[in-house]
Amino acid sequence: MDQLFAKLSDILGPGGLLTGDDAADAAKSVWTRLGQPLAVARPRSTEEVSALLKACHAAGVPVTPWGGRTGLVDGAFATGAVAILTDRMNRIEEIDKQGSTMTVQAGCVLQTACEAAEAQGLFLPLDLGARGSATIGGVVSTNAGGNRVLRYGMTRDMVLGLEGVLADGTIVSALNPLIKNNTGFDLKQLFIGSEGCLGIVTRVVLRLRPQPTSQDAAFLAVETFENLPRLLRLFERELSGTLSAFEVMWREFYELVTTEPAKGRPILPHGAPFYVLVETLGADQAGDSERMERALEKALEAGLVADAVVAKSKAERDRMWALRDDVAQVARNGPVFTFDVSLKISAMEAYLAGLKAALLERWPNATMVVFGHLGDGNLHIIAGVGERSARKAVEDLVYGHLQKVGGSISAEHGVGLQKRDYLACSRSPEEIALMGRLKAMFDPRNILNPGKVLEPAEAPAAGPELASAETGLLG
Amino acid sequence: MDQLFAKLSDILGPGGLLTGDDAADAAKSVWTRLGQPLAVARPRSTEEVSALLKACHAAGVPVTPWGGRTGLVDGAFATGAVAILTDRMNRIEEIDKQGSTMTVQAGCVLQTACEAAEAQGLFLPLDLGARGSATIGGVVSTNAGGNRVLRYGMTRDMVLGLEGVLADGTIVSALNPLIKNNTGFDLKQLFIGSEGCLGIVTRVVLRLRPQPTSQDAAFLAVETFENLPRLLRLFERELSGTLSAFEVMWREFYELVTTEPAKGRPILPHGAPFYVLVETLGADQAGDSERMERALEKALEAGLVADAVVAKSKAERDRMWALRDDVAQVARNGPVFTFDVSLKISAMEAYLAGLKAALLERWPNATMVVFGHLGDGNLHIIAGVGERSARKAVEDLVYGHLQKVGGSISAEHGVGLQKRDYLACSRSPEEIALMGRLKAMFDPRNILNPGKVLEPAEAPAAGPELASAETGLLG
Repeated sequence: MDQLFAKLSDILGPGGLLTGDDAADAAKSVWTRLGQPLAVARPRSTEEVSALLKACHAAGVPVTPWGGRTGLVDGAFATGAVAILTDRMNRIEEIDKQGSTMTVQAGCVLQTACEAAEAQGLFLPLDLGARGSATIGGVVSTNAGGNRVLRYGMTRDMVLGLEGVLADGTIVSALNPLIKNNTGFDLKQLFIGSEGCLGIVTRVVLRLRPQPTSQDAAFLAVETFENLPRLLRLFERELSGTLSAFEVMWREFYELVTTEPAKGRPILPHGAPFYVLVETLGADQAGDSERMERALEKALEAGLVADAVVAKSKAERDRMWALRDDVAQVARNGPVFTFDVSLKISAMEAYLAGLKAALLERWPNATMVVFGHLGDGNLHIIAGVGERSARKAVEDLVYGHLQKVGGSISAEHGVGLQKRDYLACSRSPEEIALMGRLKAMFDPRNILNPGKVLEPAEAPAAGPELASAETGLLG
Repeated sequence: MDQLFAKLSDILGPGGLLTGDDAADAAKSVWTRLGQPLAVARPRSTEEVSALLKACHAAGVPVTPWGGRTGLVDGAFATGAVAILTDRMNRIEEIDKQGSTMTVQAGCVLQTACEAAEAQGLFLPLDLGARGSATIGGVVSTNAGGNRVLRYGMTRDMVLGLEGVLADGTIVSALNPLIKNNTGFDLKQLFIGSEGCLGIVTRVVLRLRPQPTSQDAAFLAVETFENLPRLLRLFERELSGTLSAFEVMWREFYELVTTEPAKGRPILPHGAPFYVLVETLGADQAGDSERMERALEKALEAGLVADAVVAKSKAERDRMWALRDDVAQVARNGPVFTFDVSLKISAMEAYLAGLKAALLERWPNATMVVFGHLGDGNLHIIAGVGERSARKAVEDLVYGHLQKVGGSISAEHGVGLQKRDYLACSRSPEEIALMGRLKAMFDPRNILNPGKVLEPAEAPAAGPELASAETGLLG
């Protein structure tokens, strides 16, 4: 290992390789388990990533990419691995105003990229809670979603070009800036959302949009579940092209975030089973506000909405979003487990009812709090059963019920280590076998973020160093 | 071969295997070279596709998928192969109104799928000239683009789930209906746009949108190239979310489609260097028309537009689109070669000027007609030099100049056989090598549409039958 570290130090220059206490310090996170990396490597360029991968590949030593380390599925757990921290590769290399694209290094923080686009009158529409720490490399590697997927898609839909490094150090540079490019297999898709298991993302070209100049929001109370998709489709239709969010809070969530000690206060009275936050982004404030009012009137006339408030100012809009974002209140239910799933809207009501009944049957004091991006079929479920040790039993229920309705165990957070053992709930044996074959082809020595997404196929082919690292990783 | 045919006949049932004259008849097409398939197989189900692939795989006999056979790059050329015609797998299996998705078999004609969605108040926004013959399997396998990519994306962006069959007959079913689904590697991306080289698409789940109820169009004359991207960004901004097309016709194209014997007549006088067709789709006819007028006023005030007409009726809109679609007029320039490329908007003007100069230098009577989806960076270039035999020389110029500006040799048509030899103009050696490794992994016996996209890696591993087929294919 000393020999490898000396080599990596050479490649990475001063401050480029953290070991011992420095590495342990870098591995402290409140968000996610980072484990105990062998070392933390801080490359400054794609070429350095390539050289360090080549060295690790030759030595059979695993690597785990680190961006903002705000993931929620232990995808950056690095025990037994060299962590590749991208904090020295954080430049915005180019913003092409005519082409409406930006070229960004993997370590650039999402919010920094968003602000740089905005300064040019452009818009990078990826919006998520971790925006201030998550990196571009991280959101690309995990195909992050967030609040505006309904209109702008997932991260995958914003990536036009990508440069990545393969396990053996080969640089695959495909920094295409074009919306249309049908020249053979779309290799970048294998880097996007594969959580660092097939290659390390070093740079991307992102598609930008025009910066919206108007914003509207409304807060609604809804009496029945079946009115939710009707309402969604009504808004999609009436607010053609401008609907940017359709967030639903189940009663329990709304009550938690609007009662002491939460800072938020009710926007509409308690008592309705569902609350919806609707948002539009546009370019014509007067006209857009009128449309929102008109769409709401139609919804009221159709009996889809029991009560509604339209935000009259930025402060009121912010207040609505603040409720939606005050997820921390769920901790008031004691130890809880959070889930990020997606399923057909038509299956949601029965799924949640069945799951809640199953939880209550086993733990009579169980709590279940639900909210989510309904427009994307994405629900966040927070379950508390009073015991931290019950995680697996709760997971079995959540994912077991989900499997029956063809849902996805990960809508936007990814698989990482946490959901790996449940992958078969959402993917067929043929799919998992094919993923395994891809993994084996891209990473024959299993050094790329091993153990994430897929179980390691077999005993690694490398020397004793890797074997002990693996043991640590799986321990 | 007789033994294989007997087996395929068994699998496919009555009318399921066409040979001899019947196969030759099926291979007649005005659009594309289909070659002389060994036979034409017409499976009725995914299971039959699986069984027939298993048989062909065992025998080492190539297969080439056939949908509507309206491709433009000889991607369905089937000499030496069994063509898999999907015309008996053409059902729309489900339309989920709440979830706004449809599940469709590969052989369903695009227009049929669009109409079925429309009947439910929903919208499948893929729109291209071949809509009446192209199939869903074909548009997915080639990642078709078309007129509304600017707003709705390519076919790739509409596919939520996909079922495909691998070379050895393994069915990989991932009929996910969810917008958000981050459970491991996104395998469907390897089937989309890979032109049947990695697997055969059998079914897909498509994302639908609300059916627009308003439509506006305007026709503009523009004096300088640099005003085009400014105009595009102005419309994108002002018509937030509703801009669905921004089509540019260069002077020569506009004159061809508005003079005898073309049926079209000028909408604006001849003489401007560029004409633009702008379209919006929305849900508020009065409000949307007002916005279009207002955006146009801003464009006129900013000096971006020299002259403009707004369509006042569907007939007027149709007349605008009819000009754009009357591509057949380019045949009046004698034998021509058509190109489908994309490049950065900022590089377009110099690229076209350089290319035209190079064509004229070599062929003083050369013609070059240009039009395209400027919003996507996608240009269609029609070059005529008077000699049909000059194809390669013209290709060398078009792609050679394109390579210098980092353009793409195929924006939306794909690579097929026609562009294969130029792949290196748009993809790096590392990318091509990685594509080759994927091909070898997915299709070790090289039976899946061999020779398309990539050159066959080496002498096939199969028996003499395959060897002779290969010879035919490459002849």
